[in-house]
Amino acid sequence: MGNAHIFPEDIGMRYELYYWPAIQGRGEFVRLALEEAGADYVDVARLSGRGRGVPVLMRFLESDTEERPPFAPPFLKASKLVIGQTANILSYLGPRLGLVPKAEASRSWAHQLQLTVMDFLVEIHDTHHPIASSLYYRQQKSEARRRAKHFIRDRLPGFLDYFETVLARNSSGRGFMLGRGLSYVDLSMFQLVAGLRYAFPKTMARVESDVPGLVALHDRVTVRPNIAAYLASERRVPFNQYGIFRHYPELDV
Amino acid sequence: MGNAHIFPEDIGMRYELYYWPAIQGRGEFVRLALEEAGADYVDVARLSGRGRGVPVLMRFLESDTEERPPFAPPFLKASKLVIGQTANILSYLGPRLGLVPKAEASRSWAHQLQLTVMDFLVEIHDTHHPIASSLYYRQQKSEARRRAKHFIRDRLPGFLDYFETVLARNSSGRGFMLGRGLSYVDLSMFQLVAGLRYAFPKTMARVESDVPGLVALHDRVTVRPNIAAYLASERRVPFNQYGIFRHYPELDV
Repeated sequence: MGNAHIFPEDIGMRYELYYWPAIQGRGEFVRLALEEAGADYVDVARLSGRGRGVPVLMRFLESDTEERPPFAPPFLKASKLVIGQTANILSYLGPRLGLVPKAEASRSWAHQLQLTVMDFLVEIHDTHHPIASSLYYRQQKSEARRRAKHFIRDRLPGFLDYFETVLARNSSGRGFMLGRGLSYVDLSMFQLVAGLRYAFPKTMARVESDVPGLVALHDRVTVRPNIAAYLASERRVPFNQYGIFRHYPELDV
Repeated sequence: MGNAHIFPEDIGMRYELYYWPAIQGRGEFVRLALEEAGADYVDVARLSGRGRGVPVLMRFLESDTEERPPFAPPFLKASKLVIGQTANILSYLGPRLGLVPKAEASRSWAHQLQLTVMDFLVEIHDTHHPIASSLYYRQQKSEARRRAKHFIRDRLPGFLDYFETVLARNSSGRGFMLGRGLSYVDLSMFQLVAGLRYAFPKTMARVESDVPGLVALHDRVTVRPNIAAYLASERRVPFNQYGIFRHYPELDV
């Protein structure tokens, strides 16, 4: 998208991201945007020391006085502003990091797509937790099998086909979800493809040929210098069995 | 919030809302905002005639040429703009209908709250459809019982307590979720309380005393002239067993 727009109050801004340190989760969509843009940010709960670590995150969430508390992580502190909800954070950061076109209609469209990504993520998560997030997977394994079967047959292809269609119809720029250059929505597509490959490798091996544009977009994002450096760094939490994307072979059928 | 902000391109605008005609669903949050503001709008799929009805909605969703197709209803047409995702629609309409404060920080906060409403709605819906939306309730009844139990014990009070806290901490205006006057978030709180009372009457009878602010807010919204007129009209679809809020006594324990 070229240069970031000018927000005079943001010059020299150090963003503080608050998210669980042991998982990619929803926070990863924000991390990818910050990393791609080379933004100055602190991943608060992943660090230690004064004003850092999970207790700081918890203290904020459980504060008795914060007038505008977020419901859950991730949230972003930008000077005095606290912004919760992943898609809302990206909507705020997008123009500041040069990761969305300037026109209001395009920003609204990018946000709409990101909200659909968030809807998809809930369904991905609920394949392994269809009954309650507070229970272990093993306590809802039979329900998970049933939910995953429908997810793989109907929902996964439905969402991927939709995003492939959007990508193919972008008349402004070939190979981007919207506009003429990279936006945070492209980064989110990368994360979806990467996560689904981790969680459902057999399914993805079967369906990827139906969504060649998304796969090519994933590949192009992977080799962008800032993203490649990030993925190779310790800042990228590896996929694991605690996040949204989990690999249970019995669910990948 | 006083008067709507001035958007010269919107003067004399007739909004077109596209949503399923037989349910309140997510579209209801948009309908409430349009009704409260006395906006000029057409509920496209609920009408018949040229350019009206469900086929028009379907044709748009299934178009082979629409460059920016929404993933699902509701979507709003405002002149040439098509806006999908409920919270995104409200974020667009809010300032135009005078249903959100002007400052960017307040609009972002309102949107954050609305996104949390949307998260809550998914969990409410999934109490009766924990396996797949494409199956009937009776095909997932045992899983629904299990999910609803956890929902009622943990999630319903968690979300309601959060919104009650936000309401209580608003230092600008007593009895509103944010700012000094009514916003679309207040209308959404009304709809949540009304819907939960329909779906889970026993549970709500038990928990309402813990969230007196939300209950009072619900009551005040009910008697606002435009809302009262709307609720008494045929434009308000009654609660029923096809929407997000459904009353299955066996889930309300």
